[in-house]
Amino acid sequence: MASPVASAALKARVHRPSMLKKLCQPQDLLHHFPNGAYLGWSGFTGVGYPKKIPTFLADHVEQNNLQGKLKYSLFVGASSGAETENRWAGLDMIERRSPHQVGKSISKGINEGRIQFFDKHLSMFPVDLVYGFYTKDKPNNKLDVVVVEATEIKEDGSIVPGASVGATPELIQMADKIIIEVNTSLPNFDGLHDITMTDLPPKRKPYLIMGVEDRIGTTSIPIDPEKVVGIVESDYQDQTSPNTEPDEGSAQIANHLIEFFEHEVKHGRLPPSLLPLQSGIGNIANAVIGGLDNSNFRNLKVWTEVIQDTFLDLFDSGRLDFATATSIRFSPTGFKRFYDNWEDYYGKLLLRSQQVSNSPEIIRRLGVIGMNTPVEVDIYAHANSTCVMGSRMLNGLGGSADFLRNAKYSIMHTPSTRPSKTDPHGVSCIVPMCTHIDQTEHDLDVIVTEQGLADVRGLSPRERARVIIKKCAHPVYQPILSAYFEKAEFECLRKGMGHEPHLLFNSFDLHKALQEEGSMQKVKLW
Amino acid sequence: MASPVASAALKARVHRPSMLKKLCQPQDLLHHFPNGAYLGWSGFTGVGYPKKIPTFLADHVEQNNLQGKLKYSLFVGASSGAETENRWAGLDMIERRSPHQVGKSISKGINEGRIQFFDKHLSMFPVDLVYGFYTKDKPNNKLDVVVVEATEIKEDGSIVPGASVGATPELIQMADKIIIEVNTSLPNFDGLHDITMTDLPPKRKPYLIMGVEDRIGTTSIPIDPEKVVGIVESDYQDQTSPNTEPDEGSAQIANHLIEFFEHEVKHGRLPPSLLPLQSGIGNIANAVIGGLDNSNFRNLKVWTEVIQDTFLDLFDSGRLDFATATSIRFSPTGFKRFYDNWEDYYGKLLLRSQQVSNSPEIIRRLGVIGMNTPVEVDIYAHANSTCVMGSRMLNGLGGSADFLRNAKYSIMHTPSTRPSKTDPHGVSCIVPMCTHIDQTEHDLDVIVTEQGLADVRGLSPRERARVIIKKCAHPVYQPILSAYFEKAEFECLRKGMGHEPHLLFNSFDLHKALQEEGSMQKVKLW
Repeated sequence: MASPVASAALKARVHRPSMLKKLCQPQDLLHHFPNGAYLGWSGFTGVGYPKKIPTFLADHVEQNNLQGKLKYSLFVGASSGAETENRWAGLDMIERRSPHQVGKSISKGINEGRIQFFDKHLSMFPVDLVYGFYTKDKPNNKLDVVVVEATEIKEDGSIVPGASVGATPELIQMADKIIIEVNTSLPNFDGLHDITMTDLPPKRKPYLIMGVEDRIGTTSIPIDPEKVVGIVESDYQDQTSPNTEPDEGSAQIANHLIEFFEHEVKHGRLPPSLLPLQSGIGNIANAVIGGLDNSNFRNLKVWTEVIQDTFLDLFDSGRLDFATATSIRFSPTGFKRFYDNWEDYYGKLLLRSQQVSNSPEIIRRLGVIGMNTPVEVDIYAHANSTCVMGSRMLNGLGGSADFLRNAKYSIMHTPSTRPSKTDPHGVSCIVPMCTHIDQTEHDLDVIVTEQGLADVRGLSPRERARVIIKKCAHPVYQPILSAYFEKAEFECLRKGMGHEPHLLFNSFDLHKALQEEGSMQKVKLW
Repeated sequence: MASPVASAALKARVHRPSMLKKLCQPQDLLHHFPNGAYLGWSGFTGVGYPKKIPTFLADHVEQNNLQGKLKYSLFVGASSGAETENRWAGLDMIERRSPHQVGKSISKGINEGRIQFFDKHLSMFPVDLVYGFYTKDKPNNKLDVVVVEATEIKEDGSIVPGASVGATPELIQMADKIIIEVNTSLPNFDGLHDITMTDLPPKRKPYLIMGVEDRIGTTSIPIDPEKVVGIVESDYQDQTSPNTEPDEGSAQIANHLIEFFEHEVKHGRLPPSLLPLQSGIGNIANAVIGGLDNSNFRNLKVWTEVIQDTFLDLFDSGRLDFATATSIRFSPTGFKRFYDNWEDYYGKLLLRSQQVSNSPEIIRRLGVIGMNTPVEVDIYAHANSTCVMGSRMLNGLGGSADFLRNAKYSIMHTPSTRPSKTDPHGVSCIVPMCTHIDQTEHDLDVIVTEQGLADVRGLSPRERARVIIKKCAHPVYQPILSAYFEKAEFECLRKGMGHEPHLLFNSFDLHKALQEEGSMQKVKLW
């Protein structure tokens, strides 16, 4: 096959001549993707993922009716773009997936049993990968092909990623063959990353990061050039979705939290500029960051997994000094704003690998304030982050447990109720016992809903239950949860087993009422 | 009151004259212990705890019928000796306790609701303590009195602990007043400790430990001499109990594990000297260490929480090069052996604070092999470490989650069954759903029983269930667990919620059969 001619745009991005010689079209690389191959992709939360090769392969399967005949084990730092992994799932191209995903087709494939999925702490996933745990059944202990997006290839062959780092360093370490998509339609992100690779124990070293701005690595990811089997020019954009506006409940949650932070500052447990903030994804997270923008806090810093649009407002208002993460996931308008004002933001942002952004070591050292949204929280402060009704996977654990286990302040924020099909308050997010547990009672300090904030630090389980029901539960569920707790407490104390009282065989009665009668409110009291 | 005269033995241990001036008898210190005081004690797993003051206070309460009238909030690194905290519990002297405890009276007090107890990751407990989270309701944010055992007071006033470090550095940091029990009947442990204190973020630094032998601190704990309100001479021994002999099932578990380690070495995923070992407490842990003593592994190293008798055998056979922990908890004969051969062991042991021994940072960096025993494990690899039937507290979480979350190999070992009152196999330790979850499915790599070993790395929940039931469940429970799983899988996949299939409202049916009919075997199949 004749090599394509390199465009001027591509030449401006590829500074190693031998790499340009590997320029090809996606179809030239098809033979690297036999059925059953183990694949790695760059990308994290739908940015920085390869687009051209996955789209070509999906087209190939679709056009040749190969659904179910070309299936892969797919490892990506977190979720990829919907037009790639979700389309692949719809075309039955995914045999196995880890550790996180977003998209209707892929979650359908997982929950109908066609896709073997496992979620893992995002900090641990790249470590287990280099331990060889995920490739232990492969003779060479390698991923067959790793496809990465780059915004530059340097003279030494190393690559500059785009808007995320994720697990790309480790995926590349574990790759048998590498394909690079050089994206010439994105800005060159050179200088925005701090890249570290992963040594195996007993040779691992500390991460010498003592502040959110600290650099300990290089600006690009080293690559063994002999492993590169092809480079492809791409001009596809990251396909992100617009943000939804924060609702009233989210604003109330934000207010409770800001009041709590002010209280902690007043009592000398937090400095006036707080400590590095970690904020999850979604409405409430956006509202909390928005709330900080209307607060008196200054010189804020962010140590988080994903940087979202609202952080741009915090930068612009002068409240945020520095933010670091493993991914910048803006909305399309957010990306435009970011690219248009590149010089303003460039020096205040740093992207690291997910092993570093989510590192227990660094999160604990920096005293991060961790905030996440669960599926449900129980009266003893366990939380479910992943499986609805104990069984149906949403997106995966993500970094929630990396942060909540190690943060100085481990905070779960949730609406007190969600609607069911027939009842606007059909689902209480505060339940007697979580149907799946990802965060334990030993991990959480604060639970907050639009109703109020429960500070459970230093409390026994029975004390926790009282304060969570009183402060966080929706008024329609307060009597229900109190009835459960009081009966459980009475029964269990009487039997000398009352440390964490449960009516074990009725602990999911609210969920049963939801399933059978459409609302948790319809539960029969105990 | 007249000060007692310092004995020659005491003078040999106290090298700061101003401290000797504070010598007193326990009764002189009674006024420092008003009802409601917040107390800290040194000690960890029943060694290195203060003995003379707690015994005096218990005598005082007993002799003056003050039961329930002198109650304290008691913070100790982990458990203390039975003759202190357990006796205190029996005399209703404990209002609140954290983070771990051992003893019938104290667990009775907790489970009957008289003692407010909360368990916390042992690495996090001292951190939350210095954050001020546990003293936030005290005006001065301090612990009222901290009583510590020392085997020497140095000229600068710093103290050399005995057989444990635990949370003593942080308890001392948070103390308003300090009382030192100088134990002249124990050897002087000078040189056996590596002491670090805890800074608050944003001023925390990395723990620059890259090998189990590395020292980063001092050999004694600094003390503000003006806080010391009294020193007391003590000659009470640590009251430890003899070890039980390993049973046949434990030996089988050890064999499965050693076979697994050999497999991992063969495939290049472990070096021939393995990686630093962490081993919990109890029969199985002893058998595993004993098994290593009969293996071909050499140059072993230990990074753990508690060093037990079996490690002495490993030292003596030349297989173990170095061991570090936060506590040395030998049996009485083990201590005799240790003290009699002090010179042989001295250079091969190091005791650190529990924040360091259990540090996620260091455990992950070193690639520790973590092994613990749970109450029960479920078919999806969640584990219960604390609460029987979801409610009854045993001893507390301990460091299990510090190690299992961060270790390279996260291993749970358990007998496949335990006896109930009426059935030698009445309790299956493999259950459909754990009644309490301390370790999540995202944390465990390997489950092992006397039946076999399930390697669940990289498996989806449904794959995990199949291998755990097949390899680990007792033959009488295999058909029961398979029936649950297959029905759950069928129902949930059909409904499109089959990522982790559960019959949610029947998930505790085995526990119900145990409670109502005396054996999990009597469960009615689904």
